[in-house]
Amino acid sequence: MDRDGHTLWPGSRQAWCPSSPVYREHALALTTALAQRYHGHPALALWHVSNEYACHNLPCYCDSCAAAFRRWLHGRYAELDDLNDAWGTAFWSQRYTDWDQILPPRRTTTFSNPTHVLDFSRFGSDTLLDFYRAEKAVLNEYSPGVPVTTNFMTLTHFRHLDYHEWAPEQDVVSTDHYVIESLEHPRAELAFGADLTRGLSGGRPWLLMEHSTSAVNWQPVNRAKAPGQTIRDSLAHVARGADTIGYFQWRQSRSGSEKFHSALVPHAGRDSARFREVCELGAIAARLGELKGSTVEADVAILWDYQAGWAASGPAMPSADLEYSLTGQTVHRLLRDRGITADLVHPSADLTAYRLIVVPTLYLVRDEHAAAVAAAAEAGAEVLVTFFSGISDESDHVRLGGYPGAFRDLLGVRVEEFFPLLTGETVPLSEGTGRLWSEDVTATSAQVLSTYAAGPLAGRPAITRREVGSGSAWYLSTLPDEQTLTSLLEQVTSAAGVVPAADVAPGVEAVRRRGEHGSWLFLANDTRTDQTVAVSGHDLVADQPVGPVVLRPGGVAVVREA
Amino acid sequence: MDRDGHTLWPGSRQAWCPSSPVYREHALALTTALAQRYHGHPALALWHVSNEYACHNLPCYCDSCAAAFRRWLHGRYAELDDLNDAWGTAFWSQRYTDWDQILPPRRTTTFSNPTHVLDFSRFGSDTLLDFYRAEKAVLNEYSPGVPVTTNFMTLTHFRHLDYHEWAPEQDVVSTDHYVIESLEHPRAELAFGADLTRGLSGGRPWLLMEHSTSAVNWQPVNRAKAPGQTIRDSLAHVARGADTIGYFQWRQSRSGSEKFHSALVPHAGRDSARFREVCELGAIAARLGELKGSTVEADVAILWDYQAGWAASGPAMPSADLEYSLTGQTVHRLLRDRGITADLVHPSADLTAYRLIVVPTLYLVRDEHAAAVAAAAEAGAEVLVTFFSGISDESDHVRLGGYPGAFRDLLGVRVEEFFPLLTGETVPLSEGTGRLWSEDVTATSAQVLSTYAAGPLAGRPAITRREVGSGSAWYLSTLPDEQTLTSLLEQVTSAAGVVPAADVAPGVEAVRRRGEHGSWLFLANDTRTDQTVAVSGHDLVADQPVGPVVLRPGGVAVVREA
Amino acid sequence: MDRDGHTLWPGSRQAWCPSSPVYREHALALTTALAQRYHGHPALALWHVSNEYACHNLPCYCDSCAAAFRRWLHGRYAELDDLNDAWGTAFWSQRYTDWDQILPPRRTTTFSNPTHVLDFSRFGSDTLLDFYRAEKAVLNEYSPGVPVTTNFMTLTHFRHLDYHEWAPEQDVVSTDHYVIESLEHPRAELAFGADLTRGLSGGRPWLLMEHSTSAVNWQPVNRAKAPGQTIRDSLAHVARGADTIGYFQWRQSRSGSEKFHSALVPHAGRDSARFREVCELGAIAARLGELKGSTVEADVAILWDYQAGWAASGPAMPSADLEYSLTGQTVHRLLRDRGITADLVHPSADLTAYRLIVVPTLYLVRDEHAAAVAAAAEAGAEVLVTFFSGISDESDHVRLGGYPGAFRDLLGVRVEEFFPLLTGETVPLSEGTGRLWSEDVTATSAQVLSTYAAGPLAGRPAITRREVGSGSAWYLSTLPDEQTLTSLLEQVTSAAGVVPAADVAPGVEAVRRRGEHGSWLFLANDTRTDQTVAVSGHDLVADQPVGPVVLRPGGVAVVREA
Repeated sequence: MDRDGHTLWPGSRQAWCPSSPVYREHALALTTALAQRYHGHPALALWHVSNEYACHNLPCYCDSCAAAFRRWLHGRYAELDDLNDAWGTAFWSQRYTDWDQILPPRRTTTFSNPTHVLDFSRFGSDTLLDFYRAEKAVLNEYSPGVPVTTNFMTLTHFRHLDYHEWAPEQDVVSTDHYVIESLEHPRAELAFGADLTRGLSGGRPWLLMEHSTSAVNWQPVNRAKAPGQTIRDSLAHVARGADTIGYFQWRQSRSGSEKFHSALVPHAGRDSARFREVCELGAIAARLGELKGSTVEADVAILWDYQAGWAASGPAMPSADLEYSLTGQTVHRLLRDRGITADLVHPSADLTAYRLIVVPTLYLVRDEHAAAVAAAAEAGAEVLVTFFSGISDESDHVRLGGYPGAFRDLLGVRVEEFFPLLTGETVPLSEGTGRLWSEDVTATSAQVLSTYAAGPLAGRPAITRREVGSGSAWYLSTLPDEQTLTSLLEQVTSAAGVVPAADVAPGVEAVRRRGEHGSWLFLANDTRTDQTVAVSGHDLVADQPVGPVVLRPGGVAVVREA
Repeated sequence: MDRDGHTLWPGSRQAWCPSSPVYREHALALTTALAQRYHGHPALALWHVSNEYACHNLPCYCDSCAAAFRRWLHGRYAELDDLNDAWGTAFWSQRYTDWDQILPPRRTTTFSNPTHVLDFSRFGSDTLLDFYRAEKAVLNEYSPGVPVTTNFMTLTHFRHLDYHEWAPEQDVVSTDHYVIESLEHPRAELAFGADLTRGLSGGRPWLLMEHSTSAVNWQPVNRAKAPGQTIRDSLAHVARGADTIGYFQWRQSRSGSEKFHSALVPHAGRDSARFREVCELGAIAARLGELKGSTVEADVAILWDYQAGWAASGPAMPSADLEYSLTGQTVHRLLRDRGITADLVHPSADLTAYRLIVVPTLYLVRDEHAAAVAAAAEAGAEVLVTFFSGISDESDHVRLGGYPGAFRDLLGVRVEEFFPLLTGETVPLSEGTGRLWSEDVTATSAQVLSTYAAGPLAGRPAITRREVGSGSAWYLSTLPDEQTLTSLLEQVTSAAGVVPAADVAPGVEAVRRRGEHGSWLFLANDTRTDQTVAVSGHDLVADQPVGPVVLRPGGVAVVREA
Repeated sequence: MDRDGHTLWPGSRQAWCPSSPVYREHALALTTALAQRYHGHPALALWHVSNEYACHNLPCYCDSCAAAFRRWLHGRYAELDDLNDAWGTAFWSQRYTDWDQILPPRRTTTFSNPTHVLDFSRFGSDTLLDFYRAEKAVLNEYSPGVPVTTNFMTLTHFRHLDYHEWAPEQDVVSTDHYVIESLEHPRAELAFGADLTRGLSGGRPWLLMEHSTSAVNWQPVNRAKAPGQTIRDSLAHVARGADTIGYFQWRQSRSGSEKFHSALVPHAGRDSARFREVCELGAIAARLGELKGSTVEADVAILWDYQAGWAASGPAMPSADLEYSLTGQTVHRLLRDRGITADLVHPSADLTAYRLIVVPTLYLVRDEHAAAVAAAAEAGAEVLVTFFSGISDESDHVRLGGYPGAFRDLLGVRVEEFFPLLTGETVPLSEGTGRLWSEDVTATSAQVLSTYAAGPLAGRPAITRREVGSGSAWYLSTLPDEQTLTSLLEQVTSAAGVVPAADVAPGVEAVRRRGEHGSWLFLANDTRTDQTVAVSGHDLVADQPVGPVVLRPGGVAVVREA
């Protein structure tokens, strides 16, 4: 049932609501039958449970989920008054006096309570995780030792599940990724998703369960891949830590809902450029076996937290234009443009090894995670925090006394009020322009690097830096234009001692994987002219010695470095 | 239940449908309890009943409302055939033969009957007004003599209630107003709402129950107020007749749905520019006490009728681009730009004191109201009627024989057919251009001031004037560009002998309040340069003598005139 | 019930679902009563059954329709496994094991099965056709020999019914047409609808049941007709085969849902330019009686198939921008711009008499229809096939081995993959540019006329031609800009020996009707200057001899040729 009270599945006789006992029993019975049949099969290498959890059945607002939500809340809050406090029900007379009064955040005629909505997202993710654990337990019982995984969906905008809670339950982290060609930077989004998957995998190699050889069929217009792009997109995942790459689908179906989704063998058959490129990729893959188990080099961490994203997307926020992923993706892309790879990690991750830590729009943050960021700066890291970070705590209660509450002391700034910019509006800075957001910043102990040059905040700080221990903490109170942001990132990475994987022109992607016995530099040329990169070794794509590498437009190389 | 048949409140256990007896009993019991507890409290000055009636529960299409609607119709129409005549049910074989056949205008697969829809709007407003009266009766019983009010919402686009029916039930008219920064002219809209509130209050001072010190949280992007704007927006309401200004909310909440709505005390605390400006406003307010009871000077009336707006927004109209408020707001804004204040009054208001009466898009009009407008012209007023006025009667039956039926004789024109312009389309006039609308006008006894210069109506009259008694009646058959309309308004006001409150540059707002013992000129500078206004006296904002006043950009003054 | 499970008629007590036995009984009882009352009336010339079938009650997803759908499927598929094969239920584990498991394609959380959706469209059309047949049987019983018709809606975008199935049941084909002024080419759409109606009528004269004298009231902005346009639009239908033209409505209603729909007698009354133009049209019509029974000359056939349109509009297609009618309408319009009239006919039509056959986006096609097209080329016709034709069979199963499956051999091309262009994207061709679509074409036995000049397909064929028997087959793999397409159509028509009805400038419409005793040339001037056409005879509009005709802007002539 959706939040308007409509049944989500009028088209199916078997409701597969995530809280339905019937659905669960049915699924576990099927899994048991499969496990019984195949547990001893010699080809059994890995169990893949279900498919793209949550893609089609979350959120669900039905009565079964309402009851399950109440049970989940009972587990989270010992007393009903703890829930009342967390949800701030004193406001708008929303106080609950009985657990049975609680419903999912269904449609109302005004805004839902934001912490109610946040807990409902947590509940949804936990409910399906519990389902997955039950399926996994069956498989572990019948085939102990055989690894189990389920395919995540690390496309940037799929955020129904908190994969940081799910990852520890995977014997190997696996994911699906499809390129969205209508994005402004589709390949940067692919890299973001891959780096996020590696972050979920704790840096260890991971498995790309699904991607496509060419067009998909579920976008409004489904662009096909250009010649060479099947190979290049696949290697882009390998560069960022995938040790396996899979596809949907083997043979393009003649009928049904995905007949216009590309495949390894297209409708045209084996006598086709697409199938020949797939075969060529197979030959390359055979040469890449030596990379198995190697890991990706990254000195930069960008923090990513699904729960912060849920809270930042809550009802009645300062600006609907501030999409959670926007600042993180922008920083990631501009670093990638300079050949710098970043790990996307949870705020609870071990940050000690990173030279630069980016905290983008981390609206909701726990005290201990904010403290870990401060400690990293103290210990020598550069920390770059963007606007709308550190605002609220785990219950989405605003930290009072001036924004950005949890990072105020670290950054040496105090913000009295947000000044979001209207859609399309920009504000001049002392260097460059800002968009999306501005703030009434006072530099309490920070150095001012850039100021607002006009408007209601004219003369106030826009970008600041504060020296902290042996590191420093930078604050961005607006989203600068790309040239200004690139220049700032150059300052920050220079201060951090972060260097590119290779000295490349803008538009050439460079990522390094390193193993026990060597290193491999992945290169891809996104520009329209030939590009030369000063690296020597053996190119596993062309299967020939190189030094330097000359990349044709669209060309790729995987150089075993000499 | 909405018109698609969805429950409006799946998220609440207690349906607060306006016709629900349970809800009504519950609300009256609460009111009784409050009245019993506080009726003797020494601080009790005024009862504020409920909050923003209709904002969240109208229209409702449920079965309870269906039954109540039938009862209401029974009260309006003595016989079922009177209803059949009023609704024109002969068309499309919609004839009702039993009251029980009548439903709310729920979703159908084609257009609803427009008079059915219009009566349903009347029913909704009346139902809540009846509810309010019941609440008020309880309060009057327990604390006779203590005034009672409920906060209207005189934002231009909130039109669920016919406040002209509600106003007589208020011991003091009160309203809420929030600035919509994404509008093209947000401050003109504020002025429009304030003048409308004053019109509802019969010219007497009124109470601004709620507005905000800075950003709200329910718009897509919520812009904060610039320095000084908290003071200026508040005084803008005082200028137009408010004797009290209130805010939502005192202390900015940490959690819940309105935690990003501004407050008197922001999240940052008292050590903030916003709180300091609030304190400064407090000091100014202390000096404004002398204005209490004074009234606003206006020689212009602009007619405003919620019911005409409902009918003009009905199904299957000539142009969806013709929003009811558009022409009235445009005229109001251009007059304000010249320092001329207008009252927004109901067509039934006493028009005898006005020198200029504007009739903007008064689609539906009663015979007696059209006659009053004609009588005013006869008696010497200038009357300016815009297109799509006087078209239908109280049952939304079109007046035959040529548009604009009810005003045809007064204006001396006859329109054979509407020629709405497509979105973005314009038509050249002999002077300037028209947009939105054009018409096939014949000047039967009017003088032609401007003609269509191209298109299917080339050479036909666009703007006319007819001398009537000692006044005259002007007709606008299109919406001219702003320069042309400004120039026309100069002719009309000049003919009417209407003069600005002060001689100000465009972009400087000037409004005068006058009391028994003096007058006060409110000035506000919307331009980007200093502005000088030739007025002498004592400025209550700066608390110093002035003559002339020099206003900085964004500056305000309230001058007790010498 | 719509596919989200909402009741379609909460506003009506009597559900008129197309499968409802109650509705059917009720309608047949009414028809019987009418037939009993009027069957002997001397004025009875023709029965018009119901009104605009399907406009307001299709598709319906309710339980009654679900049961009727299952019965219909039982009739179409002998065994359940035939249905499973046709729908490709092996994919996504959708296999049905009992007829009762089948539902209408209601809302699901992902794409519906496309063949399921296609069959549901077929079912809807058949269900109402069965209803119509039952109504007609009643009328035939009471008044044998009196012709019966129902009004189609041959506006291009109304496609709920397969009128090619309905046409054989009409004693005279009738239709409704309303001009959509917001279209880029509203009068070309009128001509398309009229030519489609003539195609449905097998070339015989037809009846225009409804159109309007001026504005309608159901578009967002309803533009009125310019002076002369009432006459011109009516004659445009006569030119293309209408022998009768009717209007909605006689007298403009004062109330109800269509009070702002134009009429023969407007609100202004008989003293109006509109009514005078209607009277003038009446006088012209009296002179046009001599055309009765004459037919329209056309050497070009454009194939049109509602079922191909349904399939092409199915879920999860390569490009949502590829609207079924787009290519056919574009070719039709550009031919019309040159004075060439085309018949819009079903793929099963007899094609032997046509010199040029256009196959636009005929996504789904039966083997025998593709064979008929090939046979026509073999016999000497020019055939022009556009992209996304011949892709799937009657069950919407893709024809493997390379697109465009059914036409691959005829065209001598093989397409390996579609490369749809993003919205707004264009691709340069060796001459001109392409938009909307591109493809990876190999010319297996065709001559390459134009190639892609950039992008992933640079150098590959874009437009080809293959000589076939005494005709040839042209293939368009993209939608060229209008100038390039016009130039191509000149080549194709020249090869086919197709000539214009008259030698006219672009923007002058020319259509010829021919009867046993003569011919009539219809001319209309869409340009802004006078146009001279070299034709001699008697103009029935001006009722005077002409030779040549000089047409004022907007002028029309119907010349009985000397």
